[in-house]
Amino acid sequence: MTVAADWLQLPSDHLFGVSNLPYGVFSPRDGEARVGCRVGDRVLDLGAAAEAAGMESALVWQTGTLNAFLAEGRSAWAAGRAWIVEMLTNDTRRGCVEPFLYDLDAVTLHLPFEVADYVDFYASEQHATNVGSIFRPDGDALTPNWKHLPIGYHGRAGTVVVSGTDIVRPTGQRKGPQDPAPVFGPSVRLDIEAELGFVVGDSTQVGTRVGVDQAEDHLFGMTLFNDWSARDIQAWEYVPLGPFLGKSFASSVGAWVVPMEALAAARVDLPGQDPQPLDYLRGSALFGLDISLEVAINGTVVSHPPYLDMYWSPTQMLAHLTVNGASLRPGDLFASGTISGHDKGERGSLLELTWAGQEPITLKDGTTRAFLEDGDTVTITGTAPGPHGTRIGLGEVTGTILPAR
Amino acid sequence: MTVAADWLQLPSDHLFGVSNLPYGVFSPRDGEARVGCRVGDRVLDLGAAAEAAGMESALVWQTGTLNAFLAEGRSAWAAGRAWIVEMLTNDTRRGCVEPFLYDLDAVTLHLPFEVADYVDFYASEQHATNVGSIFRPDGDALTPNWKHLPIGYHGRAGTVVVSGTDIVRPTGQRKGPQDPAPVFGPSVRLDIEAELGFVVGDSTQVGTRVGVDQAEDHLFGMTLFNDWSARDIQAWEYVPLGPFLGKSFASSVGAWVVPMEALAAARVDLPGQDPQPLDYLRGSALFGLDISLEVAINGTVVSHPPYLDMYWSPTQMLAHLTVNGASLRPGDLFASGTISGHDKGERGSLLELTWAGQEPITLKDGTTRAFLEDGDTVTITGTAPGPHGTRIGLGEVTGTILPAR
Repeated sequence: MTVAADWLQLPSDHLFGVSNLPYGVFSPRDGEARVGCRVGDRVLDLGAAAEAAGMESALVWQTGTLNAFLAEGRSAWAAGRAWIVEMLTNDTRRGCVEPFLYDLDAVTLHLPFEVADYVDFYASEQHATNVGSIFRPDGDALTPNWKHLPIGYHGRAGTVVVSGTDIVRPTGQRKGPQDPAPVFGPSVRLDIEAELGFVVGDSTQVGTRVGVDQAEDHLFGMTLFNDWSARDIQAWEYVPLGPFLGKSFASSVGAWVVPMEALAAARVDLPGQDPQPLDYLRGSALFGLDISLEVAINGTVVSHPPYLDMYWSPTQMLAHLTVNGASLRPGDLFASGTISGHDKGERGSLLELTWAGQEPITLKDGTTRAFLEDGDTVTITGTAPGPHGTRIGLGEVTGTILPAR
Repeated sequence: MTVAADWLQLPSDHLFGVSNLPYGVFSPRDGEARVGCRVGDRVLDLGAAAEAAGMESALVWQTGTLNAFLAEGRSAWAAGRAWIVEMLTNDTRRGCVEPFLYDLDAVTLHLPFEVADYVDFYASEQHATNVGSIFRPDGDALTPNWKHLPIGYHGRAGTVVVSGTDIVRPTGQRKGPQDPAPVFGPSVRLDIEAELGFVVGDSTQVGTRVGVDQAEDHLFGMTLFNDWSARDIQAWEYVPLGPFLGKSFASSVGAWVVPMEALAAARVDLPGQDPQPLDYLRGSALFGLDISLEVAINGTVVSHPPYLDMYWSPTQMLAHLTVNGASLRPGDLFASGTISGHDKGERGSLLELTWAGQEPITLKDGTTRAFLEDGDTVTITGTAPGPHGTRIGLGEVTGTILPAR
């Protein structure tokens, strides 16, 4: 087992030990934003440490986004991570590390990468079944295509914000089944979607495909993700061209991107796909992730969505995304879609937890919620198995609802 | 009427005279990409001319995209255009212009701006009616929301390509009504969509709205647009979350972005909106554009889509896009949706022109087309009214279909 250098005083069971090392972007007080990696409850300025150690590729980290590093591709990601581990486990490297460590509470965390294109998938069978049952009670819960392809759609890249950013309640049109005409106002059904976001690197050209077994060359890492959703706006607008303003006002990503390498112990077999998908969605690089999320509203834990049950592999999502020749750019982000398990306490959205508002949940202060109220703070956290029975932390994605403007 | 300087030998009725002056990005042979504007059949290197004239803001044009100029906002756009007109109409400025003019056939044209987010609307009533009739023959052609809001969805910004880029036929899943299971292969229903694209500048913050009457502060210009569509892929995937791979393989924009100022004479009243939309979609800045498009396949003109009949104003589309607080970035692009008029010869897609392939069209070489074949070249051109009865050119958006890989 990899052990941190003694001087770091980093317990081997720390959620952010040397088997994790997620990347982010931070700025010290009065300093510029730069790439860092989380080490325990501190953050290491990677560009500064690399420069001090005489590493030629230090420049790639001396910027305010991960995009340059994302562009370099899988071998550079592996080499960079190996170098960081070496710096943190070899006592003789202390001089190149210690001066560049900052306490987390002394820095500001930023959006870790500039989002190129953002795609949201719909990969949880239980979530799709729940939503189908709520929105289309008279039809089949799953659409006929659902088990043949990972359904996805493009979202708004420009409104992806970092954890901690306040969320202004969106305004728009809604029309209930009994309303004679649409009405305008702040959303009255503001919701969350607990998801994972996968961060893509190493670009491809238009007209090329990335197969299931090549997908890992482009999967840099994973982050917690909350796809805020205005259910009333969405319900009125989404036929026939899909969600638009019900989703595009804001989507929150965690400040930490966990490298796929750190998730090796979290890999599990998929729960099983029947019918077997078409050839381009098959391969040897199929996996799920045994990641446990926790959703809290104002400190009350309301759900424990398990990523374990997700139907489609991240590699299948990426293969599907590119099968038509769509190119990839560093900073492309695709999210899993809401993660919901079979139990009620495992649902990843209020839409499901309260069954479209019919069964409100009670918070520990005694108040109830059908959907989010102004001032509510939603925090999603998560952990995954690490090596040798340990766990690694995924950080958090949090946001507080501000009243509509 | 504004008249070009004599030495330019630019007739007052030229489609690219001094009342037009669209922006683009070009590179001379062995030179770097830079911002230019089209002057007749030449292109002016704006950054070089501005530097020669001692203009302080020359740097904004000395880059390979329009984005820096887009970021500056409406007053800078007006000042920049006024300066260019002055340079081209005042004989004494010849020395700052002539050295920096390049013949169009001696330069390469590039994507004129880096696309931030791309949204496709669905603003032609006749197109939506046609598509609804074809895809949902047993229901109402227009969905209940269509006349209450400009329906839109996000597309893939990373696969927006400049006119002239070859289009690789996309591959993917399709499933006809009679197929027992989906099949995989190159799209057999590859189509075009003749549209206009609107280019956005001057960013806003998340949580703010741009009203109808502020929208023009963010509307920089307009370009021809072809939203290539694989109808078979689209039909199988699009319920419930909208078009995805059927559109995301490529969308082509023209190399020239015509400033909104150049389209002043093209403005017309909207055809009329009934029912009246909600307040946030009303205002004084509502307009249509009397723009005539022409669609040709391998040199045979197959359609003349009229933008004149479009239901929603571009300012309404932008107001809708931001009403939920979604922010704008320089380089945001929104397209009108397919432009179709009432007559059969005015339909903007093959889906409509051939009524889903049932009524193939005949090209002048005697061959017929239900959808596009490999090797086909589609070219969309357009003109708009200019001052005093003249017309201005919008250039072209063209692409040739390559076989699937």
